[in-house]
Amino acid sequence: MHPDFAERMRAFATEFNGRFDRLLTPTEPVAKRLHDAVRYAALAPGKRIRPFLVVATAKLFGPVPDDAWTAAVAIECVHAFSLVHDDLPAMDNDDLRRGRPTCHRRFDEPTAILAGDALVALAFDLISRDVCDAAIARDMIRTVARATGWSGMIGGQMLDLQSEHEPPSRELVESIHEQKTVALFRAACELGALAGGAEPDARQALSRYGQMVGRAFQIADDLLDVNACETETGKKTRKDQAAGKQTYPRCVGEERARAVAEGAARGAIAAIDRFGSDADDLRALASFTWNRAH
Amino acid sequence: MHPDFAERMRAFATEFNGRFDRLLTPTEPVAKRLHDAVRYAALAPGKRIRPFLVVATAKLFGPVPDDAWTAAVAIECVHAFSLVHDDLPAMDNDDLRRGRPTCHRRFDEPTAILAGDALVALAFDLISRDVCDAAIARDMIRTVARATGWSGMIGGQMLDLQSEHEPPSRELVESIHEQKTVALFRAACELGALAGGAEPDARQALSRYGQMVGRAFQIADDLLDVNACETETGKKTRKDQAAGKQTYPRCVGEERARAVAEGAARGAIAAIDRFGSDADDLRALASFTWNRAH
Repeated sequence: MHPDFAERMRAFATEFNGRFDRLLTPTEPVAKRLHDAVRYAALAPGKRIRPFLVVATAKLFGPVPDDAWTAAVAIECVHAFSLVHDDLPAMDNDDLRRGRPTCHRRFDEPTAILAGDALVALAFDLISRDVCDAAIARDMIRTVARATGWSGMIGGQMLDLQSEHEPPSRELVESIHEQKTVALFRAACELGALAGGAEPDARQALSRYGQMVGRAFQIADDLLDVNACETETGKKTRKDQAAGKQTYPRCVGEERARAVAEGAARGAIAAIDRFGSDADDLRALASFTWNRAH
Repeated sequence: MHPDFAERMRAFATEFNGRFDRLLTPTEPVAKRLHDAVRYAALAPGKRIRPFLVVATAKLFGPVPDDAWTAAVAIECVHAFSLVHDDLPAMDNDDLRRGRPTCHRRFDEPTAILAGDALVALAFDLISRDVCDAAIARDMIRTVARATGWSGMIGGQMLDLQSEHEPPSRELVESIHEQKTVALFRAACELGALAGGAEPDARQALSRYGQMVGRAFQIADDLLDVNACETETGKKTRKDQAAGKQTYPRCVGEERARAVAEGAARGAIAAIDRFGSDADDLRALASFTWNRAH
């Protein structure tokens, strides 16, 4: 990653975390244990890539509106929810996440289930409360709900679990990636476009960019699981193979997987050509996403 | 229950189930197992009291608009989600619900967790997709999200689990009831008011009605757990006591609990006085709710 861009990502994460922290302060009484678990899961150290996508996309259209920050927090709530539930003993049974005990290890299983549930509700609560324009709020909620639901991230996790120990299938792994990861990356870019008031064709270009970045990101993640060590990723590695997961390298080999990730990153960069130098951060993110795989 | 009203409730449930069934047909590909589990949980036999509240409330303001049916389906999605997650082994560990195996017994635990998650997302997806007026959609989503989230139903389940085996406390049991049950009953009535275009004072009266009916309903539920048999309730009874749950009869005794439920039902009926005979169904529902406790 270019040092300037790495610095900008860190600065973004710091600003985002401050806003996230404030929004995780409930306006009505909340059971302390649930509140603690939601904050633990949400404020865990992370790169905040999805919020970055929302804000960087909105910025193409002028000064970043508050609505973009609201949407950025909402999408990170959904992402945090998915990590908490995916880590549960009945799912991927992980003990370590972002270098710390997973939510159900730090608290307990019922608290983790409820913290995940609360994070989903919170995403929709925040958008419906803080986005002033009702039509934008409604479109944002629809975007998040579809990317989250049974034909999005949640459906992707079901496919992922169901196809463990199945013979490797490129078609299957692509379906899993599209639903489990790509849907939320696309949604992040569409949310930024909505916040920025983008015209339909600009929104479509950004949606395409999000799709391609999401693909590159997930293939790189599969490759990292094979090649990185625990201290680099903050979670247990080489788990996919042990669990018989459908992964891109397992289906097409590592070299080919790297080539597909590179192609997706290049496709992402091509999709935002029209935005000129305003989109340099989005280009740098696409390169970073793919370079993680090396 | 008056035979005419019982018949109207059954007719309502039949009409509602037909609409619910159609809306549970996804417009995009969904993993079959997840789809099956969502349908199993959602279309289980039930009285459909929350949807009934939405529609009966909207009807006070004229012919029932489509938005009321959409909101009715959304709130039942949220209710079904809560049953699926509450029944999980890590939570209340129930094998039987509405006379059938619980979702995780019929499928498995990860599928049940994901089916619950999908039902929440679906609630927001449907409102944002099908409610035409963006401001009404946004207000409905806010109403559902708050009633569902960490200071609503999900927070109530946390309190409920946390206070098992604590000394009986009326204050505590009332907090649990308000969050776990009453919030969604109130929301149902507020959704009907929103769909019907109610003025603020009418909306407030209906919110109060929902609150009172919710209280009567939950106390009656606690009493049923003590006094009914499994074939009557379709779920295991006398579980609350075994689990050391905070229940109203445990805190104040059965007689006093009955009196409080009756008072709440009467308060509900008083709250809707202004609507005259148009509100007879809501009155009958309040009486039914309380009479369950006998």
